Amino acid sequence: MIVRAEPLTAAAFAPFGDVLEAAGPHDKLINEGLCGRWHDRAALDFGSGRAGISIFRAEPRALPYVCALLERHPEGSQAFLPLFEAPFLVIVAPDAGGAPGTPRAFLTAPGQGVNLHRGTWHGVLTPLSPPGLFAVVDRIGEGANLEEHRLDQPFTVEP
Amino acid sequence: MIVRAEPLTAAAFAPFGDVLEAAGPHDKLINEGLCGRWHDRAALDFGSGRAGISIFRAEPRALPYVCALLERHPEGSQAFLPLFEAPFLVIVAPDAGGAPGTPRAFLTAPGQGVNLHRGTWHGVLTPLSPPGLFAVVDRIGEGANLEEHRLDQPFTVEP
Repeated sequence: MIVRAEPLTAAAFAPFGDVLEAAGPHDKLINEGLCGRWHDRAALDFGSGRAGISIFRAEPRALPYVCALLERHPEGSQAFLPLFEAPFLVIVAPDAGGAPGTPRAFLTAPGQGVNLHRGTWHGVLTPLSPPGLFAVVDRIGEGANLEEHRLDQPFTVEP
Repeated sequence: MIVRAEPLTAAAFAPFGDVLEAAGPHDKLINEGLCGRWHDRAALDFGSGRAGISIFRAEPRALPYVCALLERHPEGSQAFLPLFEAPFLVIVAPDAGGAPGTPRAFLTAPGQGVNLHRGTWHGVLTPLSPPGLFAVVDRIGEGANLEEHRLDQPFTVEP
């Protein structure tokens, strides 16, 4: 199966999570007018855990990209904030009875991060260029918070 | 007064907050060996509030930079995660009886973010180049969470 990478927009991504970006008018102007604040843009949910900030560094991948594994975190949301200005690939899928349904792939624009809602099926972190460095806001806490699903039929993401 | 901008290191910044970076060995290798995780690197504290992710876009400044105002957030920590790969300026000061003590200035390297500990005096957000775009993890909640201190004698940050 071929999945075409779509541009990441808040509307298209809404079933899966939040797009974190300075889009539309700011909510507040601070610092004597020199800084806009787009306020509280992620639906964070850490269940019985708490928020933490970690740093991830992932190997850059390339398109076409073959995806054979999806995962989800049943206990919490997970935000990926790129510490660089290049697009990265976000693969997600709706749930279909406890397994991933038809996958979709999104290509970010510079300045866009994402927050995956709790329990959203997604591919592993796939930057497309170095340094592949992200700040990640996710759940710190006890208990298993990772469910993996290996696909019988891998799919290929194309531009 | 002249304040020289120092390179941002975890040791030098420790009295004020955490440096968020992929420094030293990762804590965990995930995604079939393709992603390192530097785990839970920020001392987050949101008091009676909760964590939120906002986007800030600030006007780029230049060095020498004249600083006339410091502020602090008594109710929560505040993390600044640059969505770009250029240095930015972080101005902080210890508390000295309810007012800022002698200020210090740090220049980040690409890939470094910071988490200001709850109540730390700091300057406003000062990127040094466009796009000046940051993800900010701070406290969402009721009550005043901003204390400003205008300096009788502004100081100048030099390279």
